[in-house]
Amino acid sequence: MPKTEYVIEPGKQEIVSTTILDAPRELVFRAYTEPELFAKWWGPRRYKIEIEKFDSRPGGEWKVTHVGADGSRYGFRGVNHDVVAPERICAFEFLGMPGHVALQTATFEALGNKTKLVAHQVFQSVMDRDGMVASGMEDGANESMERLAEVLETLKAGK
Amino acid sequence: MPKTEYVIEPGKQEIVSTTILDAPRELVFRAYTEPELFAKWWGPRRYKIEIEKFDSRPGGEWKVTHVGADGSRYGFRGVNHDVVAPERICAFEFLGMPGHVALQTATFEALGNKTKLVAHQVFQSVMDRDGMVASGMEDGANESMERLAEVLETLKAGK
Repeated sequence: MPKTEYVIEPGKQEIVSTTILDAPRELVFRAYTEPELFAKWWGPRRYKIEIEKFDSRPGGEWKVTHVGADGSRYGFRGVNHDVVAPERICAFEFLGMPGHVALQTATFEALGNKTKLVAHQVFQSVMDRDGMVASGMEDGANESMERLAEVLETLKAGK
Repeated sequence: MPKTEYVIEPGKQEIVSTTILDAPRELVFRAYTEPELFAKWWGPRRYKIEIEKFDSRPGGEWKVTHVGADGSRYGFRGVNHDVVAPERICAFEFLGMPGHVALQTATFEALGNKTKLVAHQVFQSVMDRDGMVASGMEDGANESMERLAEVLETLKAGK
């Protein structure tokens, strides 16, 4: 199971998380940029994921909804500013807080057959950052990394 | 001439600037979102501006180059995450520093026949923010605001 380290300094408006994944970088990059793989790991297991748009090209839009068992819906949309293998950058908006946006950068570094994933999020304010932390972001992100590791195992097995 | 106030706190990764413009908000919004108006004020006067793309819709891309008298070229490109009158948000990249991106939000508030413009920039690091400040950002931004005020005068006169 991958372990993620978080750097969340008081008074700052960013979150940096680092995870070592036991898979080659090209597979990690695919799991981030192919919608059918992305749908298998992004977010907590308790939500079904609906992908309305998922254009991983620079300037491409994505729109994804988490649907709870009770029918509750949590929408996310963003624009990919830049998509460069092995680096991906996107702007991200939680539709529940319209107008509140974070700039996210995921960097993939090859470590032999493993990959060091650094996810960097910058928020528009310290308050937005603290709100994201208070919302249980770490638990959600840890669950995503667990699911990502499972997807990567199936990709490594060639399934 | 508009006066701009800057808030640039040490150790933070943002810049907030506030300008009161002597024109109604709808004209300020037009000067930000119509390419033929934008070209008349964005950046220092010493550069010619070339607009390759300027799609002001949510998810739209823009690509703009400043050309110096000696032929030197400085490219900028971004993706508009969200464009909501009276609010506009874009991701912005200075092509001279590939991969370095800032998330920018311009907010237009009506004050009678004047407009309060708040421009908010969040950088990926304190180093990026300090680099932008050291590059002479304030002088360039002040010159842009001066030119914007001139464009707004012509719009108010109905020219």
